[in-house]
Amino acid sequence: APPPLLAAPNSLYCPPNFGMVLGSIYRSSFPRPENFAFLKKLGLKSVLVLIPEPYPEENLTFLQENGIQFFQVGMSGNKEPFVHVSHATITKALEIALNPANHPLLIHCNRGKHRTGCLVGCIRRLQDWSLTMIFDEYRRFAFPKTRPLDQQLIELYDDSEIYERASRNNWLTFRF
Amino acid sequence: APPPLLAAPNSLYCPPNFGMVLGSIYRSSFPRPENFAFLKKLGLKSVLVLIPEPYPEENLTFLQENGIQFFQVGMSGNKEPFVHVSHATITKALEIALNPANHPLLIHCNRGKHRTGCLVGCIRRLQDWSLTMIFDEYRRFAFPKTRPLDQQLIELYDDSEIYERASRNNWLTFRF
Repeated sequence: APPPLLAAPNSLYCPPNFGMVLGSIYRSSFPRPENFAFLKKLGLKSVLVLIPEPYPEENLTFLQENGIQFFQVGMSGNKEPFVHVSHATITKALEIALNPANHPLLIHCNRGKHRTGCLVGCIRRLQDWSLTMIFDEYRRFAFPKTRPLDQQLIELYDDSEIYERASRNNWLTFRF
Repeated sequence: APPPLLAAPNSLYCPPNFGMVLGSIYRSSFPRPENFAFLKKLGLKSVLVLIPEPYPEENLTFLQENGIQFFQVGMSGNKEPFVHVSHATITKALEIALNPANHPLLIHCNRGKHRTGCLVGCIRRLQDWSLTMIFDEYRRFAFPKTRPLDQQLIELYDDSEIYERASRNNWLTFRF
């Protein structure tokens, strides 16, 4: 028999703006039912959602059916000039994201650009990345809607509390 | 003593356009000496470079000093209308990239946009990703210089040979 034109049917739809952050942490935009088959492949233990609104029923059902823990740390996004993501909120989200007991973990917001980008940027801070390269990655996912306030938050975020906690719990043994 | 303003000095420079492809495959632009400290953290076993030109002496020395294997599959990039990356070249590069004996592996070209983007796109094909989402990722790294010929190569690449070989060798047990 002749080989198939495509060896694989290429039918797995990851959510837009999907990427790996670390070996056990993923990021994406808001996953919808058409992405569930893809998400199953990740073998997720947890999902951390950064929107303040209620999570959709079909997503909750998917998590429940697959034994995936659900964490929510609502952020309103950095909208000039009055809305700011607080350092305490970032710290709370990092405590969930860095804990290996919650991995593999998917972090998402709506577009996977700003709130997710802020959190990933702060993870890179803890990994000792230069700000230049943290922003290179931030812009890649946020483009064309990069926000100076997001980058400022990543730069100015006071990581002393989470750094102390993560060090004490041995959470900083990242793969890179 | 008061805590330091920054818990970490944020001094690790990854190469621009750096990202994880899979748990054991990374991608980036051309790494230079200022990136070597970062590369060390990856614990690389191999580097696969997709440019046809000779590799710089200082990069070769870095690889040698760190026991990292060097693979080169020269591609000239898809430049309209006469230069095309051949399917055979992609297959040759995939044979190196997919082999777990070579992992962790870094794939790079010059900018980490086009040649690397083509190869990663073909890996996503083998992972059964939809073309829509393969191109979403391709464009994120290639922006603002996306090339239709690159996307066409990813779409039309005949993966039957590599698929057969990868299946036979059990190379398709990707993490996602």
